[in-house]
Parts: sequence; structure tokens; C-alpha cells
Amino acid sequence: MQFTINRNLFLENLNNAMRAISSRASIPILSGIKLSLSEQELTLTGSDTNISIQIEIPVNDDLHIQSTGAIVLPARFFSEIIKKLPGKDFSFEVKESFQTKITSENTEFMINGLDANNYPHLPEISTSSSFNVSGKTFRNIINETVFAVASQESRPTLNGVNFVFRNNSIKAVATDSHRLSQREIDLENGPQADATLIIPGTSLVELSRIIGETDPEIIVTPGDNQVLFNVGNLAFYTRLLEGSYPDTDRLIPTESMTKVEFDLSTLARSLERASLLTHESRNNVVKMSLDVDNQTVKLEGDSPEIGNVEEEVAFKSLQGDNLEISFNPDYLRDALRASITDTIVMNFTQPLRPFTVTPGREDVNFIQLITPVRTY
Amino acid sequence: MQFTINRNLFLENLNNAMRAISSRASIPILSGIKLSLSEQELTLTGSDTNISIQIEIPVNDDLHIQSTGAIVLPARFFSEIIKKLPGKDFSFEVKESFQTKITSENTEFMINGLDANNYPHLPEISTSSSFNVSGKTFRNIINETVFAVASQESRPTLNGVNFVFRNNSIKAVATDSHRLSQREIDLENGPQADATLIIPGTSLVELSRIIGETDPEIIVTPGDNQVLFNVGNLAFYTRLLEGSYPDTDRLIPTESMTKVEFDLSTLARSLERASLLTHESRNNVVKMSLDVDNQTVKLEGDSPEIGNVEEEVAFKSLQGDNLEISFNPDYLRDALRASITDTIVMNFTQPLRPFTVTPGREDVNFIQLITPVRTY
Repeated sequence: MQFTINRNLFLENLNNAMRAISSRASIPILSGIKLSLSEQELTLTGSDTNISIQIEIPVNDDLHIQSTGAIVLPARFFSEIIKKLPGKDFSFEVKESFQTKITSENTEFMINGLDANNYPHLPEISTSSSFNVSGKTFRNIINETVFAVASQESRPTLNGVNFVFRNNSIKAVATDSHRLSQREIDLENGPQADATLIIPGTSLVELSRIIGETDPEIIVTPGDNQVLFNVGNLAFYTRLLEGSYPDTDRLIPTESMTKVEFDLSTLARSLERASLLTHESRNNVVKMSLDVDNQTVKLEGDSPEIGNVEEEVAFKSLQGDNLEISFNPDYLRDALRASITDTIVMNFTQPLRPFTVTPGREDVNFIQLITPVRTY
Repeated sequence: MQFTINRNLFLENLNNAMRAISSRASIPILSGIKLSLSEQELTLTGSDTNISIQIEIPVNDDLHIQSTGAIVLPARFFSEIIKKLPGKDFSFEVKESFQTKITSENTEFMINGLDANNYPHLPEISTSSSFNVSGKTFRNIINETVFAVASQESRPTLNGVNFVFRNNSIKAVATDSHRLSQREIDLENGPQADATLIIPGTSLVELSRIIGETDPEIIVTPGDNQVLFNVGNLAFYTRLLEGSYPDTDRLIPTESMTKVEFDLSTLARSLERASLLTHESRNNVVKMSLDVDNQTVKLEGDSPEIGNVEEEVAFKSLQGDNLEISFNPDYLRDALRASITDTIVMNFTQPLRPFTVTPGREDVNFIQLITPVRTY
């Protein structure tokens, strides 16, 4: 196996393949990156068994192939080495006993490799039910929901976002049972048959990074216990979470007794001040007092050791019944960070019933639910 | 105690006073910041017993004093609170039982304070032997030496930089007994009598940050076991290390058997590549081979698990005897980072004797010494 390649071209693809490689690999060979070379292309593969990434770099002016083959190299070092090579190009040659020589200008590295035959095979997924989705849409729907997945593993399906891909929409829901985020976006040319996939939150975070700030076309191919996302020359495989996702629709309140609309950044800043103190308290809880008669909204936080804070929060409108409600400020902070409109609406029923946070615009189908805290 | 002040003015001074406050304060009151208010000024004091910082903000258009007094507040929270207040100004008022009310726009914090009478007093130092030094000069001499102080405490004086202030020069030396850095800079109007001060490295790092990128005039006032640096409205006190500093002059070799001159960045990059592998080895050692007959310099590094690297390093000139020498690449990296010239000269005597790294210019009085490693 021998080739010469442009260093920046290689590095860019290597960095993406590295996203699948864990620093705490369960199987030693998975701390490595697999390089395999055919007459047509160089393929990079990284995997942590939950997610796998395969990238194909076709032969072109920047990639010259001398002889085909495959090797696995320690990923972290290999990438550090490539980053620090002096030249514009480098040469790569596998010698005896998987020893790999990397040369660039006057620098020569010799790295101990592993037999590529021992690298696990990637799943095979039939492409018959593939459909396309815009990268920007998909990244947004990930970022608007994934923060709400459970971090504990007591109910494994809650570690994922529940996606329902329909012919004309995507609906995504995540909840850790204390708060919930649900987003629905229109889709053109979605799948013929509805596809329901519970995708692990950690996989979605990596996928969102790979999609990046551009808007590539993504081909989604659902399989039995895996789903494949093709983004340009990159194939991203993730396992799916098995089991049935809870019926979250019934959790969302349909009535409202008190309704308040805030400028998002005004509320976010007030909340940040209140949580300065609550973060130091064993009970991380703020109290919001909505006084409809006097048209005031007050936010309070306290820590027995440090002190307390109280402030009047400016709002756009307030109607319904007076209410005092206590909740974890971090859930509201996360909800506000995910929000995509300049104003948000909070609808309450009773002090101990979940309340909703929705956009200040009717045309955005996005609902977040937060469970209050009993303080007495 | 009651005043109103411009938030940014206060924050800037608070951030500087905070530099003296440790998150692991040995005495609880030292995790606080002391504020004391006279008719003329607001004084902020922070201390970790090793260093103390006192800042005076005089009465002006941005500081209005209603009543004098003093209080100690939990430093970290207080600073977070001030950072996040909504308004341009804030009001500060000490109430009963050291409760302190901080208000800005519609936000009101009430913080539990401590009795300022329990805050330790700062040392008193006679200003009779004060002298001035340029902030830029002093920051440079700190940064050129302080990295070489010992981090272990087996020989306490080595945890400091040994400064000799003379009427026309400053000489600073630091060593951890494996490497040494010595810098001498001309001074105008230094002290009348020589002042020798061993200043803790950790204090100097903070002082260097306070001096910042500008060139303020610094007034140096040596005391018995403390030294005071006045920088603008800020007074920086640090304890001195007691004991006698070793005579380092005798360590510096006066002859040279092999001499090589490098472009600094070329050598730095080669060294970085070689140490990629040596950092993974139990012996963090690179080998430099200087072949005067063939006019080549080779740098090698290896790790039994990962592999090895070998490269020819470009140089400006090479003369004397052939030599192979092994050393810790991190010491040379630190020496190169501290260097202030585009080229550096290395002078060697024997493979197991310390070698020097000096500027590629005669007019810069800067010498670094590195002890090699025996590899057989």
C-alpha cells in the first residue's frame, strides 16, 4: 500500500473520520483509523461501535496511488503527525510487519500499524428506502431537541431523540422526563412510508457537527437497527435505540390559565442572574411570580449561604390568573437557548403542572415543556 | 457604607484585585474581597497571604460616596454578580449584620458579608529605598526567566526568580537544576544600593499579567521579607523567598567544542514533531546528531509502542567537533519559546555536559542552560 496525497485534503477528511473514534475505545483496534486503498479511492474508516464514519477520497490530482492495500494506524498520533508534517504533500507506504513510513520533506516517521483484516466490518444497509433531507433543516431540528435527552441510562429510549419522518414532515421529540422538546418541520419528498427512528443523542451531536454551517443534501437510509446518513463523500452510521418511545403527545397541556410573553434575551439575562445564586444552593430552584392584577412579573433566586436576588422582569404581555411557580432555571435556560424566535410565550395551568414554552410566532411548530418543582 | 459607581470602572479594578484571591483560600475570610470606603476613595483588597493586591479608586464623576465604611464579600460571587448586572451603574449599601444590598435597574441582590475588622492587615513597607522600572522591561524579564523555576518544593529558593537590581541593570536567574535561564537588561536610575530579591515564580506570573501589554511605570519598594510593586492605582505585595540563592555563574560553560546556529522557528517545528513520539515514551528524550564533516544536523525521537521519527534540520552554520547529544525536548522548547531573536545559537562542550542556548545577536544578554540526559 503506497500513495502520495495533499496534506490539507487528507487532514480535512481525517478530522471528520476521527469524530467516530473514542479515546476510550472498548476494543483496542477501534482506537485506530483504517485506511484502505483501491485503484479508485482512499477510504478512511473510524468507529466506536455506536457510530461509524467512512469517507472516500477519489483519485485526483491531489492523490496519487502507487499500490493498493489496507492498514490500521493509532488514530490520535497519526492525526497529530499529519498536522505537524512540514510539507504540502506527504507520502505513505506500508512496509513489513505493518510498519508504516510517512515522509514529508526531510521528515520521516515510522509508525507501528495493525492488520486491517482485524478491523470490524460496517453494517450493510439496503438503500431501497432512502430519502433526502436538507442538511440545514436536519441540523436545526437536532439542535432544537437533543439537549433534552436523558443523560442517565435508566430508560434507554430516553437517551435518544424520537424522529418520525413522514412524506411531508419531520417530527422530533426528546425528553428526560423533567422537560421535553418537540419540533416539527415541513419536508418535501420525505419517505413513502413513515419511518420512526430513536437515534442516540450522542450520535446526533456528532452528526450535527459534521453537517456544520453549510447546507449539504443528506441521504437518510433507515435500516433495521442502524441508520445511515450520507453527507457528500462521508457515510455516517449510527445504531438505533430499541424499544418503544413513550407517548409524549398526551403530556402536552391543551389549556392555559396564565399566559405571558417575553423578549427572549430579557428573560434569559434575568434568569442568568437568578441562577447565579440558586446554583450554589442545594435546591436549584427559582420562583416566578406572575401578578396579572398589578401587571408585574418577578423572578427570585436564593442561596442560604450567599444571599438572594429579586428582580422585576419586563414582559410584552401578561394575562389570565395570578400565579407563583418554582422551577429549575437550567431547564428554562436550555429551552431559551434552543428557541429560534425573538420572543417566547409561556403558558401555565397550575403551580404543580408542567408549563410550555413556545415561539412568539404561530408559524413555528416548536413546543417545550418544563415540570415545576414543589417547594413546600 | 454606601456608594454608587460605574459598573465597568468597578469591574476592571475588581478583576485585578481578584488575581490575588485563591479559590482554595486557607483562611475563609481570604476567599472574600475587602471593600473600604473613605471620603476620598474606594479601596479594594484581595490576598492569598503570598500575594496581596490593593487598588484605590478615587472619588470622581463615576463614583459617588454616600457614607463611608468597610465590608468583606465572597469574591467569586460578588464578581459574577457585578458582571451580570443589567445597568451601567450600580448602588451598594451595607445594611444590618453585614448584609449588603446591590441594586441596578430592577435587580436587587442581597449578599451576606463578613466583618472587615477580621480581614488581615497588609504589611507596611518603608518607601525610602524605592526605585522605578519600565513595565515592559519588567514583564519581559519575568517572561524570559520564570518558566525555569522549580515546581517542586524540595529547595524553596529555586521556586523563585533571583533578581539583582543594580543602579544600571537588572539581572534575573531561574533554575530548577535541570535547566537555567539568565537574563540581564540595562536599567536607568536603578536603586542606589544593590537589591537582591528572590521573588516566587507564581507571584511573578500574576504581576506579569497585571502589567499587561502596555508599558506602565512601576515603582519597586523592597522590604525585609516583602516587596511592593506600585502599578498605577494598584499596589502588588508579594512575600520574598528566604535563604541564599545558589551561585549559578559557575555553572555556565565558558568554552565551546561544537557550535550551531538555527533559525528559531525551523528548530521549534522539528522539535515539536520529534516530541510527538517522545511524549508517549517513558523516556522523554530526543537525540541530536551534529555531523560537522558532512554538515548535517539530525533530530530523532522514538516511542517503543508508537514508532519513531527522524529528520534533517536545516541550520545557518555548524562548526567544531562532531557530537551526539540527548536531552529532554521540553526544556529546549521552553528555551525557544522564551527566546526573543529570530535565530539562536547552541554551544556544546561534551555529550554529558550542559549546553547553552543564546540569541543569534551579541547585544542581547540572555543565556539558557540545559542539562543533557544520559541514554546508555
